[in-house]
Amino acid sequence: MTAEERDVLDANAAFYAVFARRDADAMDALWAREAEVACLHPGWEPLLGREAVVASWRRIILGGGAPPGIRCERARAHVRGDLAWVVCAEVVPGGALAATNVFARENGAWKLVHHHASPMPQPRADGTLPN
Amino acid sequence: MTAEERDVLDANAAFYAVFARRDADAMDALWAREAEVACLHPGWEPLLGREAVVASWRRIILGGGAPPGIRCERARAHVRGDLAWVVCAEVVPGGALAATNVFARENGAWKLVHHHASPMPQPRADGTLPN
Repeated sequence: MTAEERDVLDANAAFYAVFARRDADAMDALWAREAEVACLHPGWEPLLGREAVVASWRRIILGGGAPPGIRCERARAHVRGDLAWVVCAEVVPGGALAATNVFARENGAWKLVHHHASPMPQPRADGTLPN
Repeated sequence: MTAEERDVLDANAAFYAVFARRDADAMDALWAREAEVACLHPGWEPLLGREAVVASWRRIILGGGAPPGIRCERARAHVRGDLAWVVCAEVVPGGALAATNVFARENGAWKLVHHHASPMPQPRADGTLPN
C-alpha cells in the first residue's frame, strides 16, 4: 500500500468515526469546499451540491438516523493524482451496506466529494450469494 | 461543461449503450486494463478485480439479466486529472436506479474502473421522499 492510499484510508476511517460519534459539525468539515459534491444515501434521490449534502447529514445525525455502532470493513483505496475512490463495507446492526466513497485533495487534505451506500445481501446459510 | 467532462459523459453513455444492446465483448473493452477495478451490482457482494467484474457482466448480459431498454439520465461528470466520477440515474422498466461510475484515463481513453448501482425510491403521489 502506498502512503497516499494510507492517507485516503485514514480519511475514509475518519468519515465513519465521525458518523459513529454523531458529530454533525465534524461531518460538515470532512466534505470538500472547492470541488462539487454529491451523495446517494440508501433509498434517497441523488443529492447534488454541498448545501444539500451537508444538510442531509445534519438531518440524519441530529434526527437520530445514524445507525448505532456503524463501522467500516474491507476498505480498498485507489488514488490517481488528486482524486481517489474507496470501496468498503459498512457494518450496521443486523446487516451490512456496500459503499463507494470518492475523495479529492484540497489544500493537502483528502476531502469527501461523493458517498454512495446501498444494502448488501444477507449471507445465506450455505454462504452462497442470492444472484 | 469542459471538453473533458463531455468526453467522460460520452464514455458513460457508451457504457449504457453497450448494456442496452447486450454486447458482452464491447462491455469487456470498456473496462480499464491497467487500473484496479471494482463493481457493486444492486444486491450483490462487492466484486474486486477485472476478472470478477467482467465475468459478472458476461453473466448478466448473456444470462438475460440486462433490463430491457435501460437508459441513462441526469448524468453529471466531475474530472480531476486522469480520474473522473459520474452520478446518474438508470431508467429501467418500472423504476430507476442511482449509479456512480468512476473512469480512469488509459492511453487517452476514459475506461470504467468502478460501477455502483442501487435502487432509487419510487416517487410518492405527493412528490415527497420516503426518508
